[in-house]
Amino acid sequence: MAVERLATVVWCHLVEPGDSAAGRLLSGLGPAEALRLVIGDGTTELVEDTDLATARKRWLPRLSLEHVSDALRSASRAGVRLVTRADPEWPRQLDDLGHHAPVCLWVRGSASRLLELRPSVAVVGARAATSYGEHVAIELAADLAGGGVAVVSGGAYGVDGAAHRAVLSVGGLTVALLAGGVDRPYPAGHAGLLDRIAATGAVVSEAPCGSAPTKWRFLQRNRLIAALAEATIVVEAGWRSGSLNTAGHAAALSRHLGAVPGPITSAASAGTHRLLREYGAQCITSAADIRELIGLDESPTSSVAADGRARTDDTTRVRDALSARTWRDTPDVARRAGMTPDEVEAILGLLHLEGAVVRGPAGWRNANTRD
Amino acid sequence: MAVERLATVVWCHLVEPGDSAAGRLLSGLGPAEALRLVIGDGTTELVEDTDLATARKRWLPRLSLEHVSDALRSASRAGVRLVTRADPEWPRQLDDLGHHAPVCLWVRGSASRLLELRPSVAVVGARAATSYGEHVAIELAADLAGGGVAVVSGGAYGVDGAAHRAVLSVGGLTVALLAGGVDRPYPAGHAGLLDRIAATGAVVSEAPCGSAPTKWRFLQRNRLIAALAEATIVVEAGWRSGSLNTAGHAAALSRHLGAVPGPITSAASAGTHRLLREYGAQCITSAADIRELIGLDESPTSSVAADGRARTDDTTRVRDALSARTWRDTPDVARRAGMTPDEVEAILGLLHLEGAVVRGPAGWRNANTRD
Repeated sequence: MAVERLATVVWCHLVEPGDSAAGRLLSGLGPAEALRLVIGDGTTELVEDTDLATARKRWLPRLSLEHVSDALRSASRAGVRLVTRADPEWPRQLDDLGHHAPVCLWVRGSASRLLELRPSVAVVGARAATSYGEHVAIELAADLAGGGVAVVSGGAYGVDGAAHRAVLSVGGLTVALLAGGVDRPYPAGHAGLLDRIAATGAVVSEAPCGSAPTKWRFLQRNRLIAALAEATIVVEAGWRSGSLNTAGHAAALSRHLGAVPGPITSAASAGTHRLLREYGAQCITSAADIRELIGLDESPTSSVAADGRARTDDTTRVRDALSARTWRDTPDVARRAGMTPDEVEAILGLLHLEGAVVRGPAGWRNANTRD
Repeated sequence: MAVERLATVVWCHLVEPGDSAAGRLLSGLGPAEALRLVIGDGTTELVEDTDLATARKRWLPRLSLEHVSDALRSASRAGVRLVTRADPEWPRQLDDLGHHAPVCLWVRGSASRLLELRPSVAVVGARAATSYGEHVAIELAADLAGGGVAVVSGGAYGVDGAAHRAVLSVGGLTVALLAGGVDRPYPAGHAGLLDRIAATGAVVSEAPCGSAPTKWRFLQRNRLIAALAEATIVVEAGWRSGSLNTAGHAAALSRHLGAVPGPITSAASAGTHRLLREYGAQCITSAADIRELIGLDESPTSSVAADGRARTDDTTRVRDALSARTWRDTPDVARRAGMTPDEVEAILGLLHLEGAVVRGPAGWRNANTRD
């Protein structure tokens, strides 16, 4: 293994996800040189940089070549591929995370498919989803995937699992981001689903093989979901759901953010309504809304305002003034409509062309019942 | 009856609701002088103003003293009170409609209660409401009314009726705006409900007694609902619901606009989702949200962002690194957390004060299971 690659593997053991001090050092020096500096006996640069001096105190106790070789062995055994920033498979959109970008990615499945995440959408939500939430996740994910949009999610029970499954069912691309090592399927009940995702897409983590899925790593994993996808759509989320954390990352990264509304009587939608209220999330009611959000679809032409106008025009008043049974002459219609006979005459002519009114010897009447 | 009052009654027979030419003339000259001008033989002023000349052609054919006296007789028989701009009961917020303001109001019930519409909220929505929509209308209206907020609506089946009924059930103030004359209960099935509304609140229309509730008048009635209330809340609405017209008036008048989300699988919520998407309506999930909208409540202190931060801090990492069973010393916890021993020591101290961790001879462990 090349020195830079090995150094990267060591680094991902030294740090917890999202360590910006490491990010800064690695982007400045590259992994091998940065490692030499940290392992070395405390050079002048380190001592003068208090941030780095502190960071060194948290990194060095984790330096264990035994752990590194264990992780590499597990990766090799599970067919897990290491993808670093130097590899062509590295998804460039992760660089938007700046110094919080992951040190590397561990990938089960096809690493090259990480380059196919344009266009892509994260469909995430509550583990304790309702049947409504799962239904919506399935509909949205299948529709998106059928239209060539990749779907990113977190592999969890509930919304995540429903979204992954729906994509697989239509032969689309889906990628699962895990908080712990990709050799440890989590949740265990999704081991089969994660296998199927890896078979055509990818199961990805920044934590090395063997890592436990701690709460911190879940929260940091959420930033990867938000960064990989062009938009994050939250389908259902409780008031304090982890999905709101993913949404927060998406907003911080200036990614598009959408939330699916639900009944206000459902606790499982309290979080998505919060995103609509407090976060300016776009209200998502269909896959078309999501495609519009990421610029794939045109918005529908009609607007509420235009509709309102069309329905409140003089035509309405003329038709109000006509009967479906009784014939009325133009002056009578004009009086009832509160319009001039000339105005009424012109509109009756148009309505006659449309077949909406009938002309008879005694005047006019409506042709049919109204909507 | 004073001359100005009688002239006002005549005017409300000459025009259809929302006639801005009449509004302009009436606000310039007052009803009696304006009427003299229009009935007169076409003075120089009128001939020179083409708008008014046209308007005159639509007004004069409707001049019928028989209709006027019929309407006054019906009003007197039904105990209907005329409220003009000159009366103290005139709700000043209607003046925001400018030249589109109503000529007068016909009121069944207590005209003076029209002055109690501050604070007030319009709760409107689909006639073909689902049980969800009716449930939400009841909950919101009862909660608002219980807190002293008057509820304005349109007296229709579905959402409107549910809102009115809920207010009556808690002894609050509710006002119904009708499209036709207030002596003609519409819908007929709500005759009893409208009687009960009139008994404690008011049933109001700008159309004189005997007027049919035409489609045009419904659309214009919606502007009165929007103008009377400080906020318009749409509970359920189909894609082309008339409630969107009310919402459009509220937006045009710079009144607050709220929409209650529902399942995206429900056609009865398609219109409210449209208001959220296209109209910038506020997402309403509770009566507290509505009170916040009209400035009665403070917003909740917590925000998604603040929560996200609180949950992703170093405390999480320290607790991740502790076990509930195994004792771990500070250097071990620091290594697992990816933090320095000093940082961990400080956080363990705080957690110990909170009772979240236990100290023993062999180090630390978590005190209890985590959320």
